[in-house]
Amino acid sequence: MNQNELKKLVGIEAAKYVTDGMIVGLGTGSTAAFMVKEVGRRVQEEGLQITGVTTSNETSALAESLGIPLKSIDEVDYVDLTIDGADEISADFQGIKGGGAALLFEKIVATYSKACIWIVDESKLVDKLGAFPLPVEVVPYGSEQLFRLFEKKGYQPTRRLTAEGEILLTDGGHHIIDLHLDVIENPVKLAEELTALVGVVEHGLFIHMVSKVIVAASDGVKTLEAR
Amino acid sequence: MNQNELKKLVGIEAAKYVTDGMIVGLGTGSTAAFMVKEVGRRVQEEGLQITGVTTSNETSALAESLGIPLKSIDEVDYVDLTIDGADEISADFQGIKGGGAALLFEKIVATYSKACIWIVDESKLVDKLGAFPLPVEVVPYGSEQLFRLFEKKGYQPTRRLTAEGEILLTDGGHHIIDLHLDVIENPVKLAEELTALVGVVEHGLFIHMVSKVIVAASDGVKTLEAR
Repeated sequence: MNQNELKKLVGIEAAKYVTDGMIVGLGTGSTAAFMVKEVGRRVQEEGLQITGVTTSNETSALAESLGIPLKSIDEVDYVDLTIDGADEISADFQGIKGGGAALLFEKIVATYSKACIWIVDESKLVDKLGAFPLPVEVVPYGSEQLFRLFEKKGYQPTRRLTAEGEILLTDGGHHIIDLHLDVIENPVKLAEELTALVGVVEHGLFIHMVSKVIVAASDGVKTLEAR
Repeated sequence: MNQNELKKLVGIEAAKYVTDGMIVGLGTGSTAAFMVKEVGRRVQEEGLQITGVTTSNETSALAESLGIPLKSIDEVDYVDLTIDGADEISADFQGIKGGGAALLFEKIVATYSKACIWIVDESKLVDKLGAFPLPVEVVPYGSEQLFRLFEKKGYQPTRRLTAEGEILLTDGGHHIIDLHLDVIENPVKLAEELTALVGVVEHGLFIHMVSKVIVAASDGVKTLEAR
């Protein structure tokens, strides 16, 4: 199977956890899109009754096109289950997200979710995080100061650009600086360090936020539970 | 003297600390405006050579109208001296800022400043912080969730509105929630708590950021130094 077929498999598998009456956090990215499409199919063909809470303008557009009823995170008390992709997941279920630049809204929705499932292909499973560049969402004013600070710290920052080579603006109106760290020995400590910096809105480290990971491997779909 | 005359006095006194060649952080608010005007007067009448770094669109407009050369915080290595107002200053030189909704850019500029001076009238000096509502700048998406969390914690939140009764949008494109706390027993702990919340961009607690406070009192201008 090619990678797209694997992504579709886990997307469909994850959508099975969605049941009538749920408020469902709908993730962003190519893998999450397969899940959103399957949820949309169940809404249309099986009469599944749910309310979606999206994590990006991109996912809102997709969900609307599929007829999934949507609410903002502010219009619900909480989210029952959020299903989202991830860019890297360590052996202890910490993750890096934000390759699709939606980390801020994804983290906001995950924060108010009773449960989170990540769906990935097996290439995303790593021993320690850090080979994937860590996105840091920053306020534009002062972002060059932060960039220089990250350089001094040896974090090898790059600015996230659009396909056209312009500075990327997130759905929240911020910039993204990607840190090329190779290995993150202590994600909890790094998360605290980044959060404490003035001008940092959010970072792509998702610590203790997920308890189930559905993985598409060449030999089939596996579901991993946090110990 | 009325309050405006007192504000003008400390504005002029603070501007004396500005010398040729300095990169100067220019604060926001009614007291800081008097300082900016005096700096502008010295630029025009005395040929003072400085570069200003502003903390709001409002201050940028004022400084430009006065002919003060400006750079963004990202175009300078650091700021030599920032002069700004404050809404409340405790006996141990911690402060609350953000009554003018410019706390984010004010804190960004202060962060990269070698020295900061606050200019206030004596009504702003308090034993403990908290009588002045503490502004928290938040990402609009999810801000209602934060509002409810603050309610549950007993922080008595209110949303900052414009004079026209609309939700206020900061220069950074965020909302402000004001916390009515009466007394903040431990500003350092509260600052850490707020910073750690997903969706909080910045808060109005300025901890260990200032070493000199110039106060206008009915019996004249006093300069207080941190011990």
